Amino acid sequence: MTVSKLGPILVLGGARSGKSRFAERLAETSGLKMHYVATGRAFDDEMRDRIVHHKAARQGKGWTTHEEPLDLVGVLARIDARDRVILVDCLTLWVTNLMMEGRDMAAAFAALADFLPGAQARLVFVSNEVGLGIVPENRMARAFRDHAGRLHQIVAEKSAEVYLVAAGLPLKMKG
Amino acid sequence: MTVSKLGPILVLGGARSGKSRFAERLAETSGLKMHYVATGRAFDDEMRDRIVHHKAARQGKGWTTHEEPLDLVGVLARIDARDRVILVDCLTLWVTNLMMEGRDMAAAFAALADFLPGAQARLVFVSNEVGLGIVPENRMARAFRDHAGRLHQIVAEKSAEVYLVAAGLPLKMKG
Amino acid sequence: MTVSKLGPILVLGGARSGKSRFAERLAETSGLKMHYVATGRAFDDEMRDRIVHHKAARQGKGWTTHEEPLDLVGVLARIDARDRVILVDCLTLWVTNLMMEGRDMAAAFAALADFLPGAQARLVFVSNEVGLGIVPENRMARAFRDHAGRLHQIVAEKSAEVYLVAAGLPLKMKG
Repeated sequence: MTVSKLGPILVLGGARSGKSRFAERLAETSGLKMHYVATGRAFDDEMRDRIVHHKAARQGKGWTTHEEPLDLVGVLARIDARDRVILVDCLTLWVTNLMMEGRDMAAAFAALADFLPGAQARLVFVSNEVGLGIVPENRMARAFRDHAGRLHQIVAEKSAEVYLVAAGLPLKMKG
Repeated sequence: MTVSKLGPILVLGGARSGKSRFAERLAETSGLKMHYVATGRAFDDEMRDRIVHHKAARQGKGWTTHEEPLDLVGVLARIDARDRVILVDCLTLWVTNLMMEGRDMAAAFAALADFLPGAQARLVFVSNEVGLGIVPENRMARAFRDHAGRLHQIVAEKSAEVYLVAAGLPLKMKG
Repeated sequence: MTVSKLGPILVLGGARSGKSRFAERLAETSGLKMHYVATGRAFDDEMRDRIVHHKAARQGKGWTTHEEPLDLVGVLARIDARDRVILVDCLTLWVTNLMMEGRDMAAAFAALADFLPGAQARLVFVSNEVGLGIVPENRMARAFRDHAGRLHQIVAEKSAEVYLVAAGLPLKMKG
């Protein structure tokens, strides 16, 4: 059985739920060469702090990092290989970046959905579950959580395993 | 065993979680005549779009649709029958409408709770889980999520099955 | 086997999810002497109503109540005993109080983490899961959910059982 047969893993969770650490452990115990795709942009100090915090946690563990805010499928296609695990952290920041650039969301999501079944690497996607609070008053925020929700359904449908992480504990939704 | 013995089903989920689609599939695979109770009011373009989107998804599958923003128990009582599945989408919009009309929430919830055990139809309720974000600054929003939370507890207690849907995947909470 | 061998229980849930009632039932069926640590401060009418509502639910069931907004470890250490169950309701209000007083959050969390393994009483912690909605626009609210998320991970790691409650129904995350 080849690694790619296992299919993608989607790790959903709330803020400070431990979802990134859980995903990193999945990768670190895979025995595969570890590639990290960071979708976040350091557009303010708070975001910069979060990125630094995440980088420090991965330090010295053999990760190769790729920063790509928009062309997620492009970077995945370039680094895709059978002996690799690729961790994408996170899908919600990718959605934010696509929205800020006015991109065609449906087309971007479809391109990712098309890529997934043929991927050679073991893919692990981290994303924020953002739809379980009150409807936001801000229209942009409502559009964002609609996009994120749709993307989660698309990726979950193509994934072999889906986890919801809370308080550092994974709840298996699929697989 | 009669169908009504099975008891109601409650489907909770976040925004764009796939909860409505999951509930519709439950109904569509039940072999029963399908009735849809829409509680939403098209008070703005965004809401109108959501209603159109939901209607399109049900198109041509044999649903009979009933629109009722307030008198949920009344419409359920009128269409209740042993050979039917009745999908109510959704409880949170019903809560919103009751609040906007200044109705007695406890009385409305009690009337629904009283109706459930004797229902002949297979009932499926869809509702938004809205209590897992930050406490809203808006007092009305806090009251809304308190009402929704209380209603979910009431309906869950009377239900045979309860699901929490995320990323299109159902997590069984009860049943 | 002594009671303390069982380790703490963490009960997470959303607003009006039934988490407090679930935690109270755990305590009431333990056969132990019941102590209640209330961390909430009645700083406005709404908060006062919530506290009155919770107190009424515990009335006449044999609870000894302790009110402590800040020095949680201090009160736990004072009342800790092998034949007792101590219910702390809730951790998120404790986080709020610590933040309002400008306390060192990491130190406070570390002190609690240090206390847990040696506790003699059966400890039950209730807390709000607040990280599953949209990122709040308010910086204080973002800091709050980061602190709450970190604390939940710390307490969950030291706990024997962790539950996520929705619609009055507990989902076991650990134990």
